[in-house]
Amino acid sequence: MMNKIEHIGIAVRDITEAGGIYQRLLNTDVYKTELVNNEYVNTAFLQVGPNKIELLQATSADSVIAKFIEKKGEGLHHIAFEVDDIVSEMERLKADGFTLLSDAPKAGADNKLVCFVHPKDAKGVLIELCQEIPGV
Amino acid sequence: MMNKIEHIGIAVRDITEAGGIYQRLLNTDVYKTELVNNEYVNTAFLQVGPNKIELLQATSADSVIAKFIEKKGEGLHHIAFEVDDIVSEMERLKADGFTLLSDAPKAGADNKLVCFVHPKDAKGVLIELCQEIPGV
Repeated sequence: MMNKIEHIGIAVRDITEAGGIYQRLLNTDVYKTELVNNEYVNTAFLQVGPNKIELLQATSADSVIAKFIEKKGEGLHHIAFEVDDIVSEMERLKADGFTLLSDAPKAGADNKLVCFVHPKDAKGVLIELCQEIPGV
Repeated sequence: MMNKIEHIGIAVRDITEAGGIYQRLLNTDVYKTELVNNEYVNTAFLQVGPNKIELLQATSADSVIAKFIEKKGEGLHHIAFEVDDIVSEMERLKADGFTLLSDAPKAGADNKLVCFVHPKDAKGVLIELCQEIPGV
């Protein structure tokens, strides 16, 4: 089951500048920044009610965020839906023919297990499933 | 004040096909479709907890959705934030230097008053503010 939009990921070139803009836009502070080394990204989070905005800046030219910006420019990168049981959702989607970008959940930012659905199966939208890692 | 992500707008070529895919992806039915004549779009809504997905198909080549797809392909089009008082949020943003795409709120889909912030002021992201029209 999908509980809510956990966050929207936005690809930016300069997370400090973008963080300042989104703080003014959303009238709330960046409450956390986190380096995700295995994805070569730096992230900054803002909270809007039950949802988050995740700003993403590449820390290497090999990052998917660097490649995304090179191809499409800055902007909306992915939607993440919160799920209670990521493995069962992955099985449900796989059985229904959706292409998952990993066979097992991976560790993501913000203490989450994550998995992505290929954009070709969702009308060009990169979909993330995420589940809070329990007990932390 | 921004209450939550009200919806994410996704530009699609064929709303019937996209609706079927998103029903399977999100494991929930399209609960409403609505033609928005003044914007030349047909819309379909799915609910995920407190948030919605709005699929958008152009009904004319003049639609902003047709132009978006021509330029960027299908995919994420805008984020809409729910506000309690759209006029006061518009004034706050305007005073802070953000460019609004209209001077006054306009009637949008789903019984909302809406206003957009120019993507150039939000790192390439088209931002919508929306307020439920009261008493309907």
